[in-house]
Amino acid sequence: MKKKNKKVNASILIIGNEILSGRTEDKNVAFISNWLNLKCGISVEEVRIIPDIEKKIVNNVLLLSKKFNYVFTTGGIGPTHDDITAKSISKAFKVKYEFHKEAYKILEKYYGKIKFNDGRKKMAKMPKGSKLIYNPASAAPGFMIKNVLSLPGVPSILNSMIENCKRYITRGDKTHSKTLNFYTVESNIAKNLGIVQKKYKKFVDIGSYPFFRLGKIGVSIVTRSTSLIKLKSVNTELLKIAKLKKIKILKI
Amino acid sequence: MKKKNKKVNASILIIGNEILSGRTEDKNVAFISNWLNLKCGISVEEVRIIPDIEKKIVNNVLLLSKKFNYVFTTGGIGPTHDDITAKSISKAFKVKYEFHKEAYKILEKYYGKIKFNDGRKKMAKMPKGSKLIYNPASAAPGFMIKNVLSLPGVPSILNSMIENCKRYITRGDKTHSKTLNFYTVESNIAKNLGIVQKKYKKFVDIGSYPFFRLGKIGVSIVTRSTSLIKLKSVNTELLKIAKLKKIKILKI
Repeated sequence: MKKKNKKVNASILIIGNEILSGRTEDKNVAFISNWLNLKCGISVEEVRIIPDIEKKIVNNVLLLSKKFNYVFTTGGIGPTHDDITAKSISKAFKVKYEFHKEAYKILEKYYGKIKFNDGRKKMAKMPKGSKLIYNPASAAPGFMIKNVLSLPGVPSILNSMIENCKRYITRGDKTHSKTLNFYTVESNIAKNLGIVQKKYKKFVDIGSYPFFRLGKIGVSIVTRSTSLIKLKSVNTELLKIAKLKKIKILKI
Repeated sequence: MKKKNKKVNASILIIGNEILSGRTEDKNVAFISNWLNLKCGISVEEVRIIPDIEKKIVNNVLLLSKKFNYVFTTGGIGPTHDDITAKSISKAFKVKYEFHKEAYKILEKYYGKIKFNDGRKKMAKMPKGSKLIYNPASAAPGFMIKNVLSLPGVPSILNSMIENCKRYITRGDKTHSKTLNFYTVESNIAKNLGIVQKKYKKFVDIGSYPFFRLGKIGVSIVTRSTSLIKLKSVNTELLKIAKLKKIKILKI
């Protein structure tokens, strides 16, 4: 991973009719986002889910790659007719869509010359100038071109490849996070939270999320900041509110 | 639900830092999308996940409400400082953000006059002219303004409210779907699928998705169409391919 840069952001572009139609529940957003946060100090600031339609892929890749430091795409890099991500990204960046020599060799070796059919060969085609993202699970590599990293949609395969993205990424300042679980309802602490959030506006993000646990309801208060000191101050104030209001805290 | 219209589409706008950061895995896209497909004949054509930032909510609501027949937003309609969806949508449509009389009454009755504090009152504030989406789970209603329907982020509450969206929606032609599960690998059938897809290009969408089951790998071939006849023809052709290639079919 390259040297530090203060604030680095990313977006995720999920390409796939099966996610849009509700047939498959997406697992990749949470996985990629957590990995970027924890391992790279990069925060995901927008996600889009779009169908397997070339024009939509082209437009979204262009727009997101301008707007964010990195774009991670998932899906559409397999062997079938509906796998059009690599071709579409080539169009977006106006580069040739062609066989990547190393990818071709990897796949030929993996399948053996006889079983290396047209569908499998297709997985070696990508935008000219792409760098490979190696795939320890099923050989077919992902690729990076400009600031766009393309990964497959199958979560287990994507998960096996994510560490291989690291070498291409400039990391940012780590965002620290702390969660307090209060046995109360949001509206009981809404005013107090608002005051604390206003005070630390520029430094700490405070989110509040209801939870249900063993028949009891509560609120998870998630604080996030690149400054550990500011994060601690906010959490001290939150604990004071709990004490004042006699709110029990769930310790996990 | 209003009378039929041929093709009706929608988008979903997920508002919430907790989804973007990967802390919480989204469950609402699959739920809403399935419901719209099955119950309303409406297909979701784009999803965006954005943070709790007013400007981003305003821009995305305006853009998506122009581009699609309906926009479903989730998240940000609770009592705390980070719940800014209703206010932001008011800004987007340049209408007042004010107490909705009926929503106020519902909440006042639900909590009782004494416990009806400022945080709870906030949940009765929405864009002027909104229609209510009733909430059987926890009282606080969602709202519809223009073609935008705003629902909460907590899945169990959202699920309880979805049927109450129906009255505001013009439904479209139902999309039929059939799935065949072949015990094969994608690259073995990629060419054949491509030929069938080309033949039925305008009428049937064919998607292919690898699956893993009890140690065996396979491919789910999902076909979708508004025409049942065309869907049947495609599936007959797919079964012929399976026979020709001696592929076993998983019956669920």
